[in-house]
Amino acid sequence: MDMDQKEKQKEQCSSPIYVHNPHLDALKDDILYHFSLGTGSHNLPAMFGDVKFVCVGGSPWRMKSFTEFIAAELAMEDPKSEYPNICAGTDRYAMYKVGPVLSVSHGMGIPSIAIMLHELIKLLHHARCTDVTIIRIGTSGGIGLEPGTVVVTKQSVDATFQPKFEQVILGKTVVRSTDLDQSLAQELLQCSKGLNQFETVIGNTMCTLDFYEGQARLDGAFCSYTETDKQEYLLKAKEAEVCNIEMESSVFAAMCKLSGLRAAVVCVTLLDRLKGDQLSSSHEVLNSYQLRPQILVGSYIKQQLKAKAENR
Amino acid sequence: MDMDQKEKQKEQCSSPIYVHNPHLDALKDDILYHFSLGTGSHNLPAMFGDVKFVCVGGSPWRMKSFTEFIAAELAMEDPKSEYPNICAGTDRYAMYKVGPVLSVSHGMGIPSIAIMLHELIKLLHHARCTDVTIIRIGTSGGIGLEPGTVVVTKQSVDATFQPKFEQVILGKTVVRSTDLDQSLAQELLQCSKGLNQFETVIGNTMCTLDFYEGQARLDGAFCSYTETDKQEYLLKAKEAEVCNIEMESSVFAAMCKLSGLRAAVVCVTLLDRLKGDQLSSSHEVLNSYQLRPQILVGSYIKQQLKAKAENR
Repeated sequence: MDMDQKEKQKEQCSSPIYVHNPHLDALKDDILYHFSLGTGSHNLPAMFGDVKFVCVGGSPWRMKSFTEFIAAELAMEDPKSEYPNICAGTDRYAMYKVGPVLSVSHGMGIPSIAIMLHELIKLLHHARCTDVTIIRIGTSGGIGLEPGTVVVTKQSVDATFQPKFEQVILGKTVVRSTDLDQSLAQELLQCSKGLNQFETVIGNTMCTLDFYEGQARLDGAFCSYTETDKQEYLLKAKEAEVCNIEMESSVFAAMCKLSGLRAAVVCVTLLDRLKGDQLSSSHEVLNSYQLRPQILVGSYIKQQLKAKAENR
Repeated sequence: MDMDQKEKQKEQCSSPIYVHNPHLDALKDDILYHFSLGTGSHNLPAMFGDVKFVCVGGSPWRMKSFTEFIAAELAMEDPKSEYPNICAGTDRYAMYKVGPVLSVSHGMGIPSIAIMLHELIKLLHHARCTDVTIIRIGTSGGIGLEPGTVVVTKQSVDATFQPKFEQVILGKTVVRSTDLDQSLAQELLQCSKGLNQFETVIGNTMCTLDFYEGQARLDGAFCSYTETDKQEYLLKAKEAEVCNIEMESSVFAAMCKLSGLRAAVVCVTLLDRLKGDQLSSSHEVLNSYQLRPQILVGSYIKQQLKAKAENR
């Protein structure tokens, strides 16, 4: 145990500290409840210590398919392997791992991704991971972009186009920065240019708490504004350089920044919100769009791992 | 088609209007994207017209198990039936139906349940349902209650203990009431007294946007306050008659009130937050607690359907 603790201290000295919570040391076991994992029940360093890339997305199906995709891309696929869901003990989130790439679903909306990120950041901390890059791959509504365009987020802004995330702590509002890693965004853009398979842009992403009224849609159960009101609001967003709208990027940016994780948001636009609200494209078309962030991020990870191997 | 439209008008005159959106009439098809259902692709009145009770909860597994439970309770179980997931075309939500009871999962947090409720309210509207009761069955952290206690929500309050929900529309905040049906809450309490299987109370429920910092937990990835700060906050909540804390009740109450649905929130407490933060009880114990809202609501539905049948 002494050996182990010395090693732990050594590791912690050379790695970024992912958690900011003095109370964690007092916990005998740390139960990551929504993952159905824990420090008492699982050897987290052995399971996750080699993780260098974490990809997160709303849908569990998509994160499984990303794992299969990245396994093929990295030529690490095992025909016998089924890529078991590491969080099989719960249906809150799904988690898959292939080599240094962890793939985790986060459900829809800020609260859902925040629970996942709290437990993921603790997991990476307990596993003594270092130099981790985290990328959200998702879907979004575009503003004035051809459907299928991939947006790499420059800054995540709120519904009033401000680059901030408001976290309520003990009933009081604390404002957090939503800055993302600009060099990572540029590297992803360059990678997409190299791929030359689809349009990719860098722009601001608006993050809302609601999909219908919160995004000025006219097709929710409730709607108290006109088509003109909607257009005016979306054009104001466009003036604030908002390229797309989704529901997780602000808290993702804020929490990754706090924990020192290099982070990016890569979302495809499924429709142009200036032209409509309903996702009426065929399933085939929508599925092909949803693959684009996977293709871009998969290619980026492959490139990075290759460069690291060559530098060794 | 004329006959059909006349019937539709007749039905609408005698039923509560569930949607408040003048734009919906202009839609040729209404695609309920996150359910993978739609008016153009599915005969919603045939599929859902007989629904009288909707039960919603975070976990898809729990909503499937509730369907099996209620089928047995109502003696409507079909040993050959597998209760197929009606939303099998998507992994966003799961939906099951047995007789007049619909069971739908909603994921975690206000945005996730709000997307589901927009599409559910439109579904009930399109299916021309009448006199629908909707109950959220969930889990929560208790304040000063024995773990396993079931709380029927009197009023849903925010993190400052105010009974309101703030909805952002076109970048502006609109305040909505979180009133729930008080007679339904009393009927559920009476039903639990009749069952006499576990403690049930009526009290306020605090609804937060975050599970860790938002609920004063000391075991998140980040924590900037002390154990004393936490206790002071939770005791203030207790003074405001908050019995439990969860993450969906405010928008659930607000949207159900707007749509005229008779609504209740029934959550079991998995731990006493005054005594700790981690869900460290065994899976068996936690599972037995999670069954309690199902048992109560199942018994209530059975009672109501029996009373209706006798009044016919």
